[in-house]
Amino acid sequence: MSKPSIPQGTRDFSPAVMAKRKFILNTIESVYKSFGFMPLETPAMENLQTLTGKYGTEGDQLLFKILNNGDYLKDIQLTEVDSKSLTPKIADRGLRYDLTVPLARFVVMNRHEITLPFKRYQMQPVWRADRPQKGRYREFWQCDADVLGTDSLLCEADFIRIYTSAFSQLGLKDYEIRINHRKLLEAVCELCGAGDKFKAITIIIDKADKIGNDGVAKELIAIGLSEADSQKLLSQLDRIAFTEAGLAKLEKELGHLESGVKAISDLRQLLALSPSSLNTVKLDISLARGLDYYTGCIFEVVPTSVKMGSISGGGRYDDLTGVFGMKGISGVGISFGIDRIYDVMEELKLFPESGDQFTDILFCPMDEPALLYCIQIADQLRHSGVKVEVYPTASKLKKQLDYANDKKILWAAIVGENEMRTSIVSLKNLRTGEQDTCKSGDILGFIH
Amino acid sequence: MSKPSIPQGTRDFSPAVMAKRKFILNTIESVYKSFGFMPLETPAMENLQTLTGKYGTEGDQLLFKILNNGDYLKDIQLTEVDSKSLTPKIADRGLRYDLTVPLARFVVMNRHEITLPFKRYQMQPVWRADRPQKGRYREFWQCDADVLGTDSLLCEADFIRIYTSAFSQLGLKDYEIRINHRKLLEAVCELCGAGDKFKAITIIIDKADKIGNDGVAKELIAIGLSEADSQKLLSQLDRIAFTEAGLAKLEKELGHLESGVKAISDLRQLLALSPSSLNTVKLDISLARGLDYYTGCIFEVVPTSVKMGSISGGGRYDDLTGVFGMKGISGVGISFGIDRIYDVMEELKLFPESGDQFTDILFCPMDEPALLYCIQIADQLRHSGVKVEVYPTASKLKKQLDYANDKKILWAAIVGENEMRTSIVSLKNLRTGEQDTCKSGDILGFIH
Repeated sequence: MSKPSIPQGTRDFSPAVMAKRKFILNTIESVYKSFGFMPLETPAMENLQTLTGKYGTEGDQLLFKILNNGDYLKDIQLTEVDSKSLTPKIADRGLRYDLTVPLARFVVMNRHEITLPFKRYQMQPVWRADRPQKGRYREFWQCDADVLGTDSLLCEADFIRIYTSAFSQLGLKDYEIRINHRKLLEAVCELCGAGDKFKAITIIIDKADKIGNDGVAKELIAIGLSEADSQKLLSQLDRIAFTEAGLAKLEKELGHLESGVKAISDLRQLLALSPSSLNTVKLDISLARGLDYYTGCIFEVVPTSVKMGSISGGGRYDDLTGVFGMKGISGVGISFGIDRIYDVMEELKLFPESGDQFTDILFCPMDEPALLYCIQIADQLRHSGVKVEVYPTASKLKKQLDYANDKKILWAAIVGENEMRTSIVSLKNLRTGEQDTCKSGDILGFIH
Repeated sequence: MSKPSIPQGTRDFSPAVMAKRKFILNTIESVYKSFGFMPLETPAMENLQTLTGKYGTEGDQLLFKILNNGDYLKDIQLTEVDSKSLTPKIADRGLRYDLTVPLARFVVMNRHEITLPFKRYQMQPVWRADRPQKGRYREFWQCDADVLGTDSLLCEADFIRIYTSAFSQLGLKDYEIRINHRKLLEAVCELCGAGDKFKAITIIIDKADKIGNDGVAKELIAIGLSEADSQKLLSQLDRIAFTEAGLAKLEKELGHLESGVKAISDLRQLLALSPSSLNTVKLDISLARGLDYYTGCIFEVVPTSVKMGSISGGGRYDDLTGVFGMKGISGVGISFGIDRIYDVMEELKLFPESGDQFTDILFCPMDEPALLYCIQIADQLRHSGVKVEVYPTASKLKKQLDYANDKKILWAAIVGENEMRTSIVSLKNLRTGEQDTCKSGDILGFIH
């Protein structure tokens, strides 16, 4: 028998890791709920017809495809097939690649039951056949929230509130919410006489982190911008404060362009609807995030005291469901990257210390009669909401306390003949080593 | 564009359904936690090497297999292949079929980090390529808890406590916990002179629900039992109370057989360790549950006021991890069938009425300035733990109240010019229709 293993790029989440992941997931979920978002879950498998063509050619290649069941080769001529031509004949289903396409598919299938605006959150794993590397997995979780069916900028403002509230509850202080507007970047391109090169320019700007400003300038010139225009464009890409002053400055520069007017009007409205002190929010015209898809405001959250990419992103799209035949549904959504948030919080030691203490108190019976005595008290304590274990055998005390220490249990209640005779337990604090006795009915008060 | 759909046997869980599912899942999780069980999650994909051969030939056929990525046909000779011989060449991974084999795999892979007894719970979907029908899905959830590494019957007794506590919190009163012991059925076979026919007899008994006692008798005679022995065996299969009197009766009949002695000793110990009033527990010697796998006590929970199969089951196994090369780990576990519990609770109307009220209060702004006023009060209320939405535009009141009614929101806070001038809101109870005004700072007290 060979050693068992798990597929490349997948992970087991041990209890200690689960405790931390649940802390993140529960926090985000409770913030989503406080804004009236409703839960949705969709199947892991989708028809490949639903998924194919939605994520670009590269995305199609990264879909995990599920082999049809039964004798799937029965009616297939195997001459002159290759992998590419065989796949659609033997695989009708694939694993979900994100939570956005399933949302669109759900909304179209249930359009007559859904009330707009439709606010849903969804926290489920997705699968991508990417090459695994540090921080990139083939199975990972997305935590999305979207509002469909309204173009009110209150949605965007609420997402800023959600970021502020979630990161505050997670204890993460050093982060920046970067926002942009698709039309702002359009206006900047126009300003530099390159309105027709919008797409190429966004691709170049997206690489700024890697190739630096000099590299960007070089590539801009290579696609036809003048030296002066490329410098002009670069000068617009500095992050500025998201304030009325910042917007006024942009207005002066871009307010004579149609796309500039729309973008600044949206951003001004967003500012008015946002919470009052917003020093974590920056306007970042270089923010692209696959602009093909987004049509209005765009978000990205980046931790500032840890070297790490974005931990959340999102934006407004004009036509989410059009690809499934339902036109004109505008929406806006964000997605938290749980795995990266986990890594950031681990590095900054932000997880609560007691998070992986699963049991409050372990009862340690010294003999068989004590076991019966212990389980009665344990039952009572559980009724009061205490998480209680009784060590299942009257093993040596050391073995039982080792178990408690391995599980990081704080309290051990030791019960032998003496304790039973006088209706007490010996309570040991396994952190301090202190030990005391206490009436069996008073344990709750003692350990709290 | 054809209408989008989802794969046969899979389901979307809409917000209203999610609310009910979460009520079940959260209840079971909190009960598991109160007994010191720790969360574990494993990947959806497992290597087929891990899964194959663990669920019988039929199970192997029901595994969903994932097509290898890239040019998977590259080195494959396509002459003289059929589906069966091609599959292992083009699919290395499959979707998890249950949560037990992944647990065994996890324990073996992490044997040096795990403290025994290891108590884990796991609540995740599993996938089976079964023919979909009412109550049978291709994607469904299992909610397992297992204790590994101890043969103490306190584990079994704790699972009885877990059943009692979970079903009480879910509001389900009419159910029976049926228990059996593998060796009890062995002893009964021996008693009827058919100790060598144990396996065949369990298969026949398992069909009693369908073919009735007469059918069972006929089939027992067909495999070689005498008329008298088959009647003797049938007479043992009545469910009896799980009490000392019940055990004493069994002891009289089966106490002279080795397997009977062991079974009755185990059950007597279980009775001693169980909660005192156990009128929901019945001894059921006909309970088989794939005895191949289990080696000690076996459980099954059946609702008694609704026609439905078992809603939970489990038992003790001697050698969970042996198949992965780690011998001698005894364990015991149970699994809740969420989908059936959902159906039972739906039929008995046991779900809390307010479960799908996702938002406590909707603010209805009558004009643009009111929108700004609303979001400030909303922010304050959220800080107090209230789930609040602000309707994102100053639409007509009817439209806003329709939205609130569709979402089953109880309170609407209507704000126009008048309310703003006097720092109040008009609060409307959407169930009773009553409307009153209230200072904007007093809303919390008003709606509670």
